Formats: sequence, structure tokens, C-alpha cells
Amino acid sequence: MEKPYVIGIDMGGTNTKFGLVDARGNVLNSSSIKTQQYTDINLYCDTLCHEMMKLVDAQGGIDLVRGVGAGAPNGNYYTGNIENAANLPWKGIVPFSEMISERMGVPCRTTNDANAAAMGEMTYGAAKGMKNFIMITLGTGVGSGIVIDGKVVYGHDGFAGELGHTKIIRDSSARLCGCGQRGCIEAYASANGVARTAQEWLQTTDRPSILRQLPIADITSKDVFDAAMQGDELAKEIFQYTGTLLGQKLADFIAFSAPEAIILFGGLTKAGDILKRPIEESMNQNVVRFWKNKVKLLFSTLKDSDAAILGASALVWDVQAHAPMSK
Amino acid sequence: MEKPYVIGIDMGGTNTKFGLVDARGNVLNSSSIKTQQYTDINLYCDTLCHEMMKLVDAQGGIDLVRGVGAGAPNGNYYTGNIENAANLPWKGIVPFSEMISERMGVPCRTTNDANAAAMGEMTYGAAKGMKNFIMITLGTGVGSGIVIDGKVVYGHDGFAGELGHTKIIRDSSARLCGCGQRGCIEAYASANGVARTAQEWLQTTDRPSILRQLPIADITSKDVFDAAMQGDELAKEIFQYTGTLLGQKLADFIAFSAPEAIILFGGLTKAGDILKRPIEESMNQNVVRFWKNKVKLLFSTLKDSDAAILGASALVWDVQAHAPMSK
Repeated sequence: MEKPYVIGIDMGGTNTKFGLVDARGNVLNSSSIKTQQYTDINLYCDTLCHEMMKLVDAQGGIDLVRGVGAGAPNGNYYTGNIENAANLPWKGIVPFSEMISERMGVPCRTTNDANAAAMGEMTYGAAKGMKNFIMITLGTGVGSGIVIDGKVVYGHDGFAGELGHTKIIRDSSARLCGCGQRGCIEAYASANGVARTAQEWLQTTDRPSILRQLPIADITSKDVFDAAMQGDELAKEIFQYTGTLLGQKLADFIAFSAPEAIILFGGLTKAGDILKRPIEESMNQNVVRFWKNKVKLLFSTLKDSDAAILGASALVWDVQAHAPMSK
Repeated sequence: MEKPYVIGIDMGGTNTKFGLVDARGNVLNSSSIKTQQYTDINLYCDTLCHEMMKLVDAQGGIDLVRGVGAGAPNGNYYTGNIENAANLPWKGIVPFSEMISERMGVPCRTTNDANAAAMGEMTYGAAKGMKNFIMITLGTGVGSGIVIDGKVVYGHDGFAGELGHTKIIRDSSARLCGCGQRGCIEAYASANGVARTAQEWLQTTDRPSILRQLPIADITSKDVFDAAMQGDELAKEIFQYTGTLLGQKLADFIAFSAPEAIILFGGLTKAGDILKRPIEESMNQNVVRFWKNKVKLLFSTLKDSDAAILGASALVWDVQAHAPMSK
């Protein structure tokens, strides 16, 4: 019998969410555990697998499950390891796919969250039917998953697609990014980046803004969005600025892989047109002539709550029913 | 019988070179015609094929030839067309593969020159055995061919790999590039770019340099190299500046596809270490931490005179002996 289900794991620094998924992209049931509570990786895996088994048993047992896909910070598709992830409790190299596969008795594949998101978009979402697209996740940071000829690009070492850490501003006054470099697009076009822009502009100018009613250090991208929706000029300009910078980089990315579309995903895309319009304008202004107005800019159509689980689960649909257990 | 030869065409705005190549990458014989003399594409193709047949007949006839590969400006691998090439005498869309295939009676494939160079490097050169690398050609302009999982990246429309037109300087004073945009790496790190840097620096400063003995408008990248070799400080700094800018962009490219190596090819690489050192330093300074000092920077090992023909010829090694004639 064809095994009808896969499991998707969305591992974040705070929470780990997981769910059982069918071939149509329905999340049948799901649950979560607190990543940060487990400083011992063995205990984390024991608990995670125990909780996943509960979901599985509620739907007919592990014999119906093809495999487990995981999206994790610094997940390496080639090795199945999580390698030196800054935001997870476990240091060094964690053989995650192997540990899960041993406990669950089915194959496990691991990649980073943005690559998982790209897989999800291609399998169930806005990129269905596309062979060439670039997924950019605009969350706390900026991640990316690149698909060429229908396959996620992993590169020589498994870590391809770190577009959030390409540079948009190259002078010495450029913002310091979490990665230790200056001027990365992540420092400007992430949710944090938008908040930083607001904080900087409020501190270095005396322009009026309803954002001044908030304690500067606490301002979030959501606050900036709310202010923009109320017509606040400064807040609107922040989205204009953010979109312009991101669009400039997207033009560079198009020159690399000539994608059919660029798909944006993540918290910041909730801003909608106020962000999309300047990105689109800037992208088309900066791109090589023959791509002008030809590359689609799309926002993800997957439900936020399900997207990461779906993406991770999409890693294992092509696993053979009797494939070897690891990787 | 296995057909032992392929033909490679290297089409430039001035000359078209072509040669018969064996499986070891030996150019058995070669010849050329003047591209610019033929404003009629039919006449050009007639002459080219007539001359290629002479080479073929001297080595045993067309039955020994598997196919023809062409590297041409704006060559589209998917369609076999040359599309709107600014530096060629023929406007609009030229169905080049089809025209050559009809006349020669063997399949023809066309791509752009930098993609052909990447194929050549992978088949016969510095990238032999590599599955993931980026080829950057530093000639009059800056071209690129990207190889991922052993295949040249063509993208959604066949035009992927225009890295010469990604931006390195983003302010309004950035140099105008031939493509109509400002600040492209091609305007700085090509042979022309080096000459422009020299001209600018000589005009806007009064720093001493033996380059001042030459008429400013005539200075070439070769002059700058010669001056640097004689210890001229300004000339040495020009290579330092050029290499630094290029290295910054290479760091961005690494974040995209995580290549095993970046391979540089073309006239400017004759400068050797004086160019390579600053590129390498800047690349490793700007790249995401985990790629620091891990991605090889190599100069092409193919003979300049043969490389473009070899590269183009490499497009057709996998053609089946009895494949259909076009594309």
C-alpha cells in the first residue's frame, strides 16, 4: 500500500511545531513543544518523537507514514545535521535526521527553514507548477530558498541560499547584522530591520510621527505597519525605504537564476501592498532590461500557521516506501 | 560507430572563430571569419558553414561529427536563438541553431559565451570533476556562467547568469554601464572598467603615475598592468580597487549557490596575482562566516586561444548520434 502521510517539523529557537500531512497539503493534526526547555538534545528528540507518535497513532499508526521532514536553523540537507545553529540550545553538530529516524523508524530529511518553505510553496502553494523561483522569507531575519529546474539549490556544502546575508549597503556606516557583517539585507528588510529603521529615524530626525507615542526601544514592525495604515507619513516612508532596498537586491538575484517568480513569505508580508509596491518598482527599475516587468513578485498563499510544517513535510514525499532509514 | 568530433563556434562582435574538437579537448583545426562583414544573416551562415565544412572534410567528413555548439552574445540555450544582441549586425531574433543545423546536417546548440566558457571549464579545464562552480569572464565586459549540480543554470527564460549586471555601487555617481544601468560590476571589473578607473583617477587627482605619459583616452587595462609591473603605485592601487569591488560581489554570489570554486577567465586575469590577491582578500572578508577561506578562487587553465571554441564544443558531447537535427 502507498503510505499516505508525511510528518513535517518546523523547528524554531522558541517552539518546535510538527504535524501529520496528507498529499493534498492538509495538516491532519499538529502539536508543539518548547525548544528552549531542552538543553539536552537526546531528551529533546525523545520528547519530540514521543509527541509525534501520539499524532501518528491517532491517524492509524507509523505504517501509514512515509517519513519525517524537518526545517531547522542551519539544517544541512546533505548530511541531515544541524550545524552550529546560533539560536538553538545545542552547540556544534547535531545529527538530527539520524536521531529522528532511529526513534521513529522511518526516514528523516532535514534542511533549513527557508528551503523547507520553498519546498512547501512548490508542492502546495504559490509556486505550484513552477520550476524556477526564489523564495524569500521576511521574518525576524531574511531567509531564502532557491529553486532551479524544479530542485532546491543546496550547493557544494548544503548551505546555498543565504541571500539575507548579501550586502545592500557597503559603507562603514551600514548596519551591523546578526551574522557579524555590515550592510546585509537582513539588517534592513526583516521585521527587525523595519523596527530598526523606525528607531533610527525617530532618533536622528525630529519629524512628527504617531510612533513617538511609543517607547522607542519597544517599537516593532507591526507598530510601524499600524501607524502607516493610519496615514503616518514617516511610517509609510519606512515601508517605501525597506521595499526599495529589497527590490534592489531582488534585481541582483534575478540576474543570477532568471526565475519565473520571486515569492515572499513571512510576517513582514502582512504589510501587503504598502510593502509590495515599492519592492516591485525598485526591482523593475534595477533589473537588466530584458527582465523588466517580466518576473512575477508574489506573496505566499499558504496559511501562516501551516506553511512551515507543510514545507518541511514536502521534503519526504519522494521517499520510497522501503528506503533505508537514515538521510 | 561513435562519432569522435564536435565543432565549436565562438561568435564575437568582430570575429567568429570555429574549430573541430576531439573528446580530449584537442582543437584539431580551426579558422575564422569576420562577423561584421555580414549584414545578411543568411550570407553569414552560408559562409560560416562552408568554412566549417572545409575543416570537417580535412578530418574525414561530417559523418564523424556529433554536432555543433555555439557561444554567442545573447544566445538562448532553450530556443537556439540569438535574441536582440547589441553587438552583432543582425537585429531581432535569429534562429541560429536551426540555421546552422539545416546547413550542416547535424544538431546545433547555442548558448551565450560565458555559459559556453563554463561548459568548457567543466569538460576540459579547471572545473573538471566539479558539480558546483561559478565562472566569471573578465573581458571587455563581465560575463558569467553558473553551474549547479553539474548543469549550467539557464533559468526560466534561458538567460540566467548575468552577474556582470549586478550592482556594486548604488549611488547616483556610480558609473553608467553599457546596459543602461548605473553601478554594474561590469563597469568596474572588466578590462574597460580598469581603463575607466585609470582615466578617472588621472583626471580627478594629481597623483604621479607613469600612465600620465600616455594620452588619457587611449589607456587600456594592459597599460595599467604594465605600469603596475614597473612598480607604479597608482596602477597597483587600481588593481587593488578593482579586485576589492569584484571580491565583494563574489561574496554575494557565494551566498546564492554555495559553489566549490569561482573560476575567473578572460583578458584581465593575465594580471595574475596583482588582481587575484585583492579579490581573494575582499571575497573572504565579505562572505558569510562559514564560507570564509573555504571557496576556491581559481584562474582558468584553458589556453586563451582555444577556450571559447572548446567551451562551445562542449555543448554537444551528449548529443545522441541519431538525434533529431534541430535544437
